Amino acid sequence: MEGKKNVLDPFGTSLITDYSRLFKEFGLKPITQEILKRIKNPSRYLRRGITFAHRDLDKFLNAFEKDEPIAVMSGIKPSNEFHLGSKMTADEIIYYQKEFKAKVFYCIADLESLVDNQIPLEEAKKIAIGNVADILALGLDPKNAFIYRQSQEKRVTNLAYLFSRKITLNHLRSLYGERHIGLYFAAFTQAGDILLPQLKDFDGPKHVLVPVGIDQDPHIKLTRDIVARVKDQFNFTLPSATYHKLQRSLKGESKMSKRDPMSFLVLNDSPEIAKKKILNAIDGGRKTAKEQRELGGEPEKCVIYELCLFHFIENDEELKKLYEDCKSGKILCGECKQRVAEIVAKFLEEHQKRREKFMDKAREILED
Amino acid sequence: MEGKKNVLDPFGTSLITDYSRLFKEFGLKPITQEILKRIKNPSRYLRRGITFAHRDLDKFLNAFEKDEPIAVMSGIKPSNEFHLGSKMTADEIIYYQKEFKAKVFYCIADLESLVDNQIPLEEAKKIAIGNVADILALGLDPKNAFIYRQSQEKRVTNLAYLFSRKITLNHLRSLYGERHIGLYFAAFTQAGDILLPQLKDFDGPKHVLVPVGIDQDPHIKLTRDIVARVKDQFNFTLPSATYHKLQRSLKGESKMSKRDPMSFLVLNDSPEIAKKKILNAIDGGRKTAKEQRELGGEPEKCVIYELCLFHFIENDEELKKLYEDCKSGKILCGECKQRVAEIVAKFLEEHQKRREKFMDKAREILED
Repeated sequence: MEGKKNVLDPFGTSLITDYSRLFKEFGLKPITQEILKRIKNPSRYLRRGITFAHRDLDKFLNAFEKDEPIAVMSGIKPSNEFHLGSKMTADEIIYYQKEFKAKVFYCIADLESLVDNQIPLEEAKKIAIGNVADILALGLDPKNAFIYRQSQEKRVTNLAYLFSRKITLNHLRSLYGERHIGLYFAAFTQAGDILLPQLKDFDGPKHVLVPVGIDQDPHIKLTRDIVARVKDQFNFTLPSATYHKLQRSLKGESKMSKRDPMSFLVLNDSPEIAKKKILNAIDGGRKTAKEQRELGGEPEKCVIYELCLFHFIENDEELKKLYEDCKSGKILCGECKQRVAEIVAKFLEEHQKRREKFMDKAREILED
Repeated sequence: MEGKKNVLDPFGTSLITDYSRLFKEFGLKPITQEILKRIKNPSRYLRRGITFAHRDLDKFLNAFEKDEPIAVMSGIKPSNEFHLGSKMTADEIIYYQKEFKAKVFYCIADLESLVDNQIPLEEAKKIAIGNVADILALGLDPKNAFIYRQSQEKRVTNLAYLFSRKITLNHLRSLYGERHIGLYFAAFTQAGDILLPQLKDFDGPKHVLVPVGIDQDPHIKLTRDIVARVKDQFNFTLPSATYHKLQRSLKGESKMSKRDPMSFLVLNDSPEIAKKKILNAIDGGRKTAKEQRELGGEPEKCVIYELCLFHFIENDEELKKLYEDCKSGKILCGECKQRVAEIVAKFLEEHQKRREKFMDKAREILED
């Protein structure tokens, strides 16, 4: 259904099911074996084809290989606790920080949460402190990162104003569909975020990689269109991007729905709640245990398997074994869910201990 | 011609000739004798009907009379030297600062000059330093004024984002016509400027008077529309405004044209250049000296007379005498122009001496 829409929707919660169209119609390129071979230790998302498409990742790799300046940029909209979708992006930038020694730029998109969700900036700040503690707990090294709120970073908003003169309403409509004017301006602001690392204050032009969910491509496209239009004033390098698939909700439906907290995990869920959510999630089981032992389960349909694939089983062999045990009917859903629930609960418990320790640091980083 | 347009044009340079429509169609109120009687020492613009219309000036006067908190707000777009149009607004806010002890908020609209005129912020800053020196030389007391650049005042831009969610594109079109998206955002930013004085940081809600040219009414209207729509978050008092007529160019045509520097005076003109401009200006003279001695001149058509009316003859009796001498044919254009040119040259000479002394202070005020 959503696959038939003409535009990707960075502000919505739609699930994209037909990824192949994106290569044909949106000009994305697949992440090939050739590209993967150039990366020493590909991340879980790269290895497993979750990060499946890119723009100019090859150019980013060229720059890295030639020791040219690089950076990695992403952000979070502080409208919610840190959920697994935010964790994907976070894991990715942490990966590039560690493996590529890339400086990280991490934007708290509080002007977007203001215009999109009408969350007052002071409220967003409180949420953001938790979000930043989460990403530090996930392993981001604040010493090689620039973390900021849009509302406090006039270099970004000033760029947004500048860009707003370079792009027409019709151009915006072609990228985003008919939107509220505030959302168009949020888009210019995102472009400001993506290009901030290339300002003089940060040592000028460089190759910046932006790992995002595929729904965010309009922002990348807009930013690249802007780079071409401000050539007389800025010598920006076109930003590169990688795109990951979107995780389904625990109910197996759209990306997630904030109206139903049982449909997604957040990193601040108590281990008990998380277990409950997992036990209630959609699985790939058959009608009866007997049938499942005979036919095997359907991991492709199973959000529990997806949790392991995307997040909770790092070892590829171990994941493969789970997949095969499921397919062969060796392991049934009840047992599997219990096992995954334990893994997730343990992860959350340890994460939350680390998170707690980072709260003061997060407050310090986001101080006005 | 311009009078037939459906919307006032704050970004354009059109001359409004049919002021009476504004009362009928735009909901402005005339400045009556009743209102003037409440003002102890009306300014030159008020006395002479140059400031001819208002919104809620009576409420501002009520607040002043009851010793409630008041402020006066205006600004300048740093795209040019200080011209006589900017001087009108400047004179007005200086008047309210002196006569009403109102705190002044003076905005350097550099985000507007960025989106409207594509002037880089650093360039705008240089122009703004001169502009601020001009307004200080005109008599603004910086001790009771808050002077700032939009690009450096995140409280203003954050308000602009907030407001952008409250007003639809169609609403903007009804106020401004079909515009570039950057100009719509500049309008939200102006609304932020107008409401800044009512933020908690400036002791909260108060009656703010905004003296502007009549072409700026859409900004006032938008701001008042916004106040109604953010009631749940802000207890803003509706801003009041006074409107002055627009001065014609020295060529007698539209408001002014930056393409033709000979068509308007700037406060930084050398006295010699200013004299030349005045001697070349459109006057209200007849075809021959003989005819003029018989029929008298036409001061209503004369931009030289307008210069005196708006700016350079403060004494009403003196002005009246000039008017009568012109009407009766007693004084001819050549003599009159020489006389006015001398007055203006003397004004500029003294102004520029004062201005020079204020340059350092202006730099200090606009420091990042």
